[in-house]
Amino acid sequence: MSYSQLTDAFLRIYRFEHLQAITSWDHATNMPPKGNDARAAAMAELAGHLHRLRTAPELATWLAKAADEPLDELARANLREMQRVYRNATALPDELVHEATMAGARCEHAWRSQRPANDWAGFAVNLADVVRLTRLQAARLSDKLGVSRYDALMDRFEPGMRSAEVDRVFGEVKTWLPGLIQRVRDKQASETVIAAKGPFPIAAQKALCERVMQLLQFDFAGGRLDVSTHPFSGGVPEDVRLTTRYSEDDFEKSLMGTIHETGHGRYEQHRPRGWLGQPVSEARSMAIHESQSLSFEMQLGRSRAFLQLLAPLLREYLGDQPAFEVDNLVKLYTRVEPGFIRVDADEVTYPAHVILRYELERPLIEGEIEVADIPRLWDEGMMKLLGVDTRGNYTNGPMQDIHWTDGAFGYFPCYTLGAMYAAQWFATIRKTRDIDAEIARGELTGVFAWLEANVWSQGSRLETDELCRQASGGPLEPAHFKTHLETRYLA
Amino acid sequence: MSYSQLTDAFLRIYRFEHLQAITSWDHATNMPPKGNDARAAAMAELAGHLHRLRTAPELATWLAKAADEPLDELARANLREMQRVYRNATALPDELVHEATMAGARCEHAWRSQRPANDWAGFAVNLADVVRLTRLQAARLSDKLGVSRYDALMDRFEPGMRSAEVDRVFGEVKTWLPGLIQRVRDKQASETVIAAKGPFPIAAQKALCERVMQLLQFDFAGGRLDVSTHPFSGGVPEDVRLTTRYSEDDFEKSLMGTIHETGHGRYEQHRPRGWLGQPVSEARSMAIHESQSLSFEMQLGRSRAFLQLLAPLLREYLGDQPAFEVDNLVKLYTRVEPGFIRVDADEVTYPAHVILRYELERPLIEGEIEVADIPRLWDEGMMKLLGVDTRGNYTNGPMQDIHWTDGAFGYFPCYTLGAMYAAQWFATIRKTRDIDAEIARGELTGVFAWLEANVWSQGSRLETDELCRQASGGPLEPAHFKTHLETRYLA
Repeated sequence: MSYSQLTDAFLRIYRFEHLQAITSWDHATNMPPKGNDARAAAMAELAGHLHRLRTAPELATWLAKAADEPLDELARANLREMQRVYRNATALPDELVHEATMAGARCEHAWRSQRPANDWAGFAVNLADVVRLTRLQAARLSDKLGVSRYDALMDRFEPGMRSAEVDRVFGEVKTWLPGLIQRVRDKQASETVIAAKGPFPIAAQKALCERVMQLLQFDFAGGRLDVSTHPFSGGVPEDVRLTTRYSEDDFEKSLMGTIHETGHGRYEQHRPRGWLGQPVSEARSMAIHESQSLSFEMQLGRSRAFLQLLAPLLREYLGDQPAFEVDNLVKLYTRVEPGFIRVDADEVTYPAHVILRYELERPLIEGEIEVADIPRLWDEGMMKLLGVDTRGNYTNGPMQDIHWTDGAFGYFPCYTLGAMYAAQWFATIRKTRDIDAEIARGELTGVFAWLEANVWSQGSRLETDELCRQASGGPLEPAHFKTHLETRYLA
Repeated sequence: MSYSQLTDAFLRIYRFEHLQAITSWDHATNMPPKGNDARAAAMAELAGHLHRLRTAPELATWLAKAADEPLDELARANLREMQRVYRNATALPDELVHEATMAGARCEHAWRSQRPANDWAGFAVNLADVVRLTRLQAARLSDKLGVSRYDALMDRFEPGMRSAEVDRVFGEVKTWLPGLIQRVRDKQASETVIAAKGPFPIAAQKALCERVMQLLQFDFAGGRLDVSTHPFSGGVPEDVRLTTRYSEDDFEKSLMGTIHETGHGRYEQHRPRGWLGQPVSEARSMAIHESQSLSFEMQLGRSRAFLQLLAPLLREYLGDQPAFEVDNLVKLYTRVEPGFIRVDADEVTYPAHVILRYELERPLIEGEIEVADIPRLWDEGMMKLLGVDTRGNYTNGPMQDIHWTDGAFGYFPCYTLGAMYAAQWFATIRKTRDIDAEIARGELTGVFAWLEANVWSQGSRLETDELCRQASGGPLEPAHFKTHLETRYLA
C-alpha cells in the first residue's frame, strides 16, 4: 500500500527531525562559541537532507495513490497533513528559498548595529530586499493554494486561517481595546503596588521554577528545564526541553516565562503517543500552541486562585517579604502599562502590538504599501491603539524585533489568536467546573484533563476550526477574550 | 577530479558524525529516561544513513581513480585513510554486523543479572555466541586485509599493529613486571599514607576540576565539562565534551579522571584545523589517543612536580587538611595494590590486567582456545602476574567488564600500548628539557608544545609506527615504560 510507504517515509523524517531538535537545543543551551561554524555546517547538512526527504519524488506518487486507498478517518487526516508537508516543502524553488534566507541573514546582521543607531534608512534598504523576496515566495505559494499572497504565508503557521477571518476578529477587538485599556489604567492609577525586593539567587529561582513546573504537572522523566538567552520550548514530544533565563534582580520574568513554556511543553508531552512519528500527531498550529502557553501563563498563571498557590512557594524559595501577599501579587501580575516593546507588553496591551503588525504586514505583502510607508503607519497605529508617541524612535518602533527580517511574515496574528483561543477554552471549562475554587485548592487536574482531551490528544486530527468547534461548541469568538479581560481587570 | 569528489563526500560524513557525537553526548549527560526509545530510533536511523554514506558504490570508483591522480603527500595520506574507512565499512555484510550486535546486546543484558549472581555457566553460553559471530567477522576481515583474524580485529582500533609486535612488547614487560610489582609493594609496605577526609561538596569538586582543566590549558571556548555515569571524551574537535562523575566521599577519582579525559580532549581540540572534515585529520589510533590521556594522568598528573602545583589548589577548593601535603599526595597517587578489577588498578598493576586479556582474547579469536577454557587460564594468569587468587570468583574475574560482550575484541592492548607511548613521549621530551623543574614552576607549555607538534597536529598523516619514529627517534620501546615505573616507584 502506498499509504504504508508514506508512513515509513514520514517516520524516517521524524527521526531526523529528532536529531535536529536536540542539536538545536544544544546549540542554544550548551554550545561553546568555537563550536559555532562546525555546528552551522552540520545543521545545514541535516536541513538539506530533511529537505530532500520531504521533497522526494516518490512521495508525490504515493500521495496520489494513497488518496484512492481505503483509509480510516485517522489515516485520512494523516494523509491530509502529509500532503501539507509535501506541498510546503515543494512549493518554492530551492534557489528562491536560499536567496531569501541570505537576504534575511544580511538584514538581521546589519540590524544588530542599525537598531542601536536608530538607523531606519539603512535598515529599510535591507528590509525592502527581504520584502521583495518574500513577495516572490508568497506569489508562488498563492498560486499553489489558491488564496491571497499574505494568506498563503500565514497558512504555513496557521493552516486554514485567512485574513478575512483575522479582519473579523481583530476588527472587533479594535472597537473595544483602546477604551478598555483606558478604563483599566484609570482604575489602576490609584492602586499601590509593592515591588519585590531582590536580589533573588539564581539557584533559588531555578528550584522555584522546577517546583512550579511540578505543580503544573510537567513530566521531568520526559523533559528538562535549562537556560538560554531566548527562552523557548524545544526537544521532542518524548523529551521536551524548556528553557528560561534568570536575572538576580527579577524573579517575575523567569517564573512567568517558565509557566508560559510549560504550557507549550505539556502540549508536546501529551501529543497522541500512538501516532508519534506521523504528521497527524503534530501540534495543530502556532495559534493553538500559543493558546496552551497562554492558558498556562495568562488564564491560569495570573489568576488570583493560582497566585494563592504561588504565594507560599515564593516565600519558601525566595524568603518572606510584603510583596508576596496575594493581593499584592495579583496587582503585580496584572499591571497594565502601554509601552513601545511588544515582548514586554502586558496581557491587555499585547493585542494592540499584534494588530498593528498585522495591519502593516498584510498590505506590505499584498503590495498595497511599501517599506517606506511603515514609519508613518507605525506612528499612527501606536498613537491610535495605545496612545504612545513613537515618532522618530525606530529603535523601539519597527526595528524592535526580527520577525520580518527572518521572513516570518504571517506569524504575528498567531500570538493574539492564541490568547483568544485560550480565553475560549477557559470559558468553556468554566461552564461545567468551578475552576477557581479547584485551583485555589491546588487541584489543577480538572483543567489539564480538559486541555488534554480537547487539544493535546487531538494532534492534527482535525482542522483548526473544527478543533475549536468540537472543543468549545463554536468557532473562535473574541467575546470570550473581552469577557476575560473585563473580569480580570475591571471587576 | 575524483579526489575532490571524495573530499566532498567525506566532509558530508564528517557533518553527520557531528550530529552523532552531540546527540550521543546528550544521551549520556542530559537525556531524561522517557526519551530513550525515540533517541535510540533516531540514532539508529542516523547510523544507517552514515553506513550508506560510507559504503556508497561511487566511493569505490572514486577511490580507484584518485589513486592515479597527482596528489601531494597530505592528500595521499588522506586517500589512504579514506580507503581504510571505506574498507572497514564495506568489509562485513550488514546481516552479520546486525546479528553480532544483537548477540552482544543479549549477552550484555543477561550479564547485568548474571554478574552479581556469579553465574559463569549462564554467561558462557551467550559469550560463546558472541565469540562465534566475532570469529566469522574476523575471518572476513582477515581475508580482506591479509593478516590473521585477531590482527584484523585489532586493526580497527590500532591500524597497522600486529600481534607479533604486541607479543614482542608485552613479552618483554612480562619478564620484569611481576618482580617490579613485588619490589614496589615491599617498599611501600612501611610507608604511612594519610587518606583525605571528606565529604567534598560536589560544587567544590566541579570548580576544582575546571580550574585544573584551565591549568592544563583546555580551551573552554571550544569545550565543556559535564557529568555522566561513565566518564568519556566526546563531542567534536571544534566542541569537545568531557565528562566526569563526582562522589562526595572521594575527590581523587573525579579529579584524576578529569585530568585523564583532558588529555583526550586536548588531542581532539588540537587536531589539525586545516584538515578537519577529512579522515587525515582524525586522531591516529586508540593507543595514541590513550597515550595522550595517560601523558596527562600518569606522566604529568601523578608526578611530584605536578602534585606540587595541585596541593595549593586542593587547599583552596576543598579546605586544608594533612592529606594535602605534597609528600602525602605523592604517596596517595602512587599507591600500588594488586586487585581483581582492571578499571580500579593503579599505574603499575594495570598492564598485568591488559596482558592477561590479550593472552586470552587472541587465542580465543584464532580458535586456539574456547570460552570454556577462560576461567582456568584467568586463574593461572592472575596468580602468575599479580599473585591474586580468583578461583570461583567470576563476578570480579572474566565477568567484570563488557568489552567482549560488546564485540570489542582487539581493543585491550591499546590501553597498555598507550601507557608505553606516553612514557616514550616523556622520555623524549626529557632529553632536551628539564620538565620537572618547569612543571613545578607551573610552566606546562613546553610539554604541551611538544605533544602538539609531534602528535596532536599530525592527525593521521603518518602511520602509527612512523609517527612514533618521527616523534621519538625510534619504534615503540617498552624500556621507557620500565624506566618510568622504576624511577617513580623505586627511586
